[in-house]
Amino acid sequence: MVTKVVLNFKTYAEATGEAALNLSRICEEVAELYDVEMVVVPQAADIRLISESVSIPVYSQHVDGVGSGGYTSSITVASIKAAGASGTLINHSERRLQLAEIEAAISASRAEGLTTIVCTNNVATTRAAAALRPDYVAVEPPELIGSGIPVSKADPGVVTGSVEAVKMIEPDVGVLCGAGISRGEDLLAALDLGSVGVLLASGIIRAKDQKKALEDLLSGIRR
Amino acid sequence: MVTKVVLNFKTYAEATGEAALNLSRICEEVAELYDVEMVVVPQAADIRLISESVSIPVYSQHVDGVGSGGYTSSITVASIKAAGASGTLINHSERRLQLAEIEAAISASRAEGLTTIVCTNNVATTRAAAALRPDYVAVEPPELIGSGIPVSKADPGVVTGSVEAVKMIEPDVGVLCGAGISRGEDLLAALDLGSVGVLLASGIIRAKDQKKALEDLLSGIRR
Amino acid sequence: MVTKVVLNFKTYAEATGEAALNLSRICEEVAELYDVEMVVVPQAADIRLISESVSIPVYSQHVDGVGSGGYTSSITVASIKAAGASGTLINHSERRLQLAEIEAAISASRAEGLTTIVCTNNVATTRAAAALRPDYVAVEPPELIGSGIPVSKADPGVVTGSVEAVKMIEPDVGVLCGAGISRGEDLLAALDLGSVGVLLASGIIRAKDQKKALEDLLSGIRR
Amino acid sequence: MVTKVVLNFKTYAEATGEAALNLSRICEEVAELYDVEMVVVPQAADIRLISESVSIPVYSQHVDGVGSGGYTSSITVASIKAAGASGTLINHSERRLQLAEIEAAISASRAEGLTTIVCTNNVATTRAAAALRPDYVAVEPPELIGSGIPVSKADPGVVTGSVEAVKMIEPDVGVLCGAGISRGEDLLAALDLGSVGVLLASGIIRAKDQKKALEDLLSGIRR
Repeated sequence: MVTKVVLNFKTYAEATGEAALNLSRICEEVAELYDVEMVVVPQAADIRLISESVSIPVYSQHVDGVGSGGYTSSITVASIKAAGASGTLINHSERRLQLAEIEAAISASRAEGLTTIVCTNNVATTRAAAALRPDYVAVEPPELIGSGIPVSKADPGVVTGSVEAVKMIEPDVGVLCGAGISRGEDLLAALDLGSVGVLLASGIIRAKDQKKALEDLLSGIRR
Repeated sequence: MVTKVVLNFKTYAEATGEAALNLSRICEEVAELYDVEMVVVPQAADIRLISESVSIPVYSQHVDGVGSGGYTSSITVASIKAAGASGTLINHSERRLQLAEIEAAISASRAEGLTTIVCTNNVATTRAAAALRPDYVAVEPPELIGSGIPVSKADPGVVTGSVEAVKMIEPDVGVLCGAGISRGEDLLAALDLGSVGVLLASGIIRAKDQKKALEDLLSGIRR
Repeated sequence: MVTKVVLNFKTYAEATGEAALNLSRICEEVAELYDVEMVVVPQAADIRLISESVSIPVYSQHVDGVGSGGYTSSITVASIKAAGASGTLINHSERRLQLAEIEAAISASRAEGLTTIVCTNNVATTRAAAALRPDYVAVEPPELIGSGIPVSKADPGVVTGSVEAVKMIEPDVGVLCGAGISRGEDLLAALDLGSVGVLLASGIIRAKDQKKALEDLLSGIRR
Repeated sequence: MVTKVVLNFKTYAEATGEAALNLSRICEEVAELYDVEMVVVPQAADIRLISESVSIPVYSQHVDGVGSGGYTSSITVASIKAAGASGTLINHSERRLQLAEIEAAISASRAEGLTTIVCTNNVATTRAAAALRPDYVAVEPPELIGSGIPVSKADPGVVTGSVEAVKMIEPDVGVLCGAGISRGEDLLAALDLGSVGVLLASGIIRAKDQKKALEDLLSGIRR
């Protein structure tokens, strides 16, 4: 199975507008050199610019499970799909959703063929999220996000516990590993614990040399 | 198994302050005549008044999974327990919570021995809620709440689907049936569909004669 | 003073993706024929497509007053400006914000030269919003939104009261009139009540012939 | 004018249930010795217990501007008034509200004679809050809350700026000073800057000797 490497641009200046396009091109270039599925996750207003310029998948950072109508400022499946997105994060720790909203967002995305990654904060919420049958669950203990301390080292139990829980409830759901991952050994450790990929952010985006940081991370795989 | 009959007082004037106490006494009286576990669910500020005056269980309408600290206006487990509550609703459709909040509220309640009822809106969210292992899940299609149309008649599939889903994921979780239930036949239908009780509100509270409405409802059980 | 006519696309299918571009071109064309400043307000993911193709101003439906950082899924000033927006709605009734968020969104927008329109629901909130010194306040009684009943007819006092309140607190803030406006006479009535323009949505977007609906509306001005 | 000293109990264990009652009695006792209006602000579930036992004013930490109806878990004016509250905080930094909610909460409180204190975070939001005509505005820079660093020392400009802004917009609104205040000199400084009182919390509640901490604070006044 191909490892999934998802890079969340958040609202970092180093990953907004033209900088977002540059970073996406780096991701595209580096992804070709390694046996990985690289996904970029820019802000909604940047999706079109990037999806028109690179061939790797572009996901949205969020989607609302609402349709056509009086939903001013919602991010709809229709709008991100029209802009070129092929998937979306849902319930990121910086944009937690209500349970019913998560379910609606997954349903609306599935209906239009978008890939879904639901973010969770512990084994119990991973169980619940898996029960909603998204494509992926990305488990990220909030205290480790942006910390530089990889979850695979600080709290491997939350990853193995999530993998086990998902296997029992919905074995088709893939587990991604987030929070604090930036080096090749972190990625390898995450895969060893049973995850099928990683969710990255500041460790790559805020690196002095984004390309080198990404290559350092992926180099672990190509051995 | 004893049928669980839970009456949510919401913010109805007919169930606030002294009126909440009167209604609770009616519930206590009627409950003794029938083979049911009757639970009253007043506003937070009314819990103490009621729990000091009646012997039936008093639940909170909501609880936040936070502890001691800088959480102004949160409803904590410690405060409702001190006031005499022995359980709580969580994630009512009029107070939807984030997934991580639901999990935290269940954990905090369980740690202090409070009974938890997580409200859900369809089979998929019932599956997810059950995965969090509350004591009960109460499924209520939002469009039927306050409608007077019983879910057991309008959408029996959401009840049987919920019962089945829970059985597969966490068989110890009881399923309650909410939305639109006010008559004896609705209650019987709900039990026939596999639920262990009902979650009531306006149908009883706003009845001209609350006691009669409650007796009409419960009379179905004492066959 | 040139009348400001702002068209909120919400998430209507008739105003998403390619349809949003078509509607924006209609707006551009019609605006040239009349002495108005026409503004289109598409979803975030559509801003770039439209701003690259038309010369009339493009606003965002919402902006968050946050900067570069860990704010996944926020709509930042930097991202909408990079995509070509020159202004934004803030606090639309379908996306109400906290008071501190409104203030932060105005500040962040002002710092980057974006025009701000804060939506309000009555005279009291118009007073408060004006005190935050946005460029415009758009008063829209929520019960009239999407109703087809123009606020200028159903509740003219909320418009004159808002105009007066703003004059006393911050006379440089312009008052727009929203909710239920779709015909030329509604627009004229709104201007007669002291507003400097209107905020439109479903009345135009869902019309069988969007161009004709817009011309009917604007025809009232060119007397 | 009598200085207003408001003590927010938040969800501190040292100020919940029986401990809340004890602390309220201390406040009552100490208040008699000094020329101040002392107000206690317990959790909703503790209001009744305290208001039945002490004679000083009891406020709620929050109120929702909704009435009788389907508003499960809302804190209504009717419920806190029935429990004995005579006022309420609104929009505390730990429970920020939407602008329209603040306005509705003030209106609902005013209609039932409850005193309102709207919390704000800077001069601009103080201006906006004052425009809504509550009884008091309490300005608290969020970064100083719980810091032990008094706003009167760290950022006196936010207090004098707020006092001036309120004087221009609604001179009848009193300004309270919050965040980091725990000693007599902080209180005096706050009054010197033009405020009519203070909003306290952890500095008193978490003190080893709550009574002594309160006396230290108030001793500054009785010169």
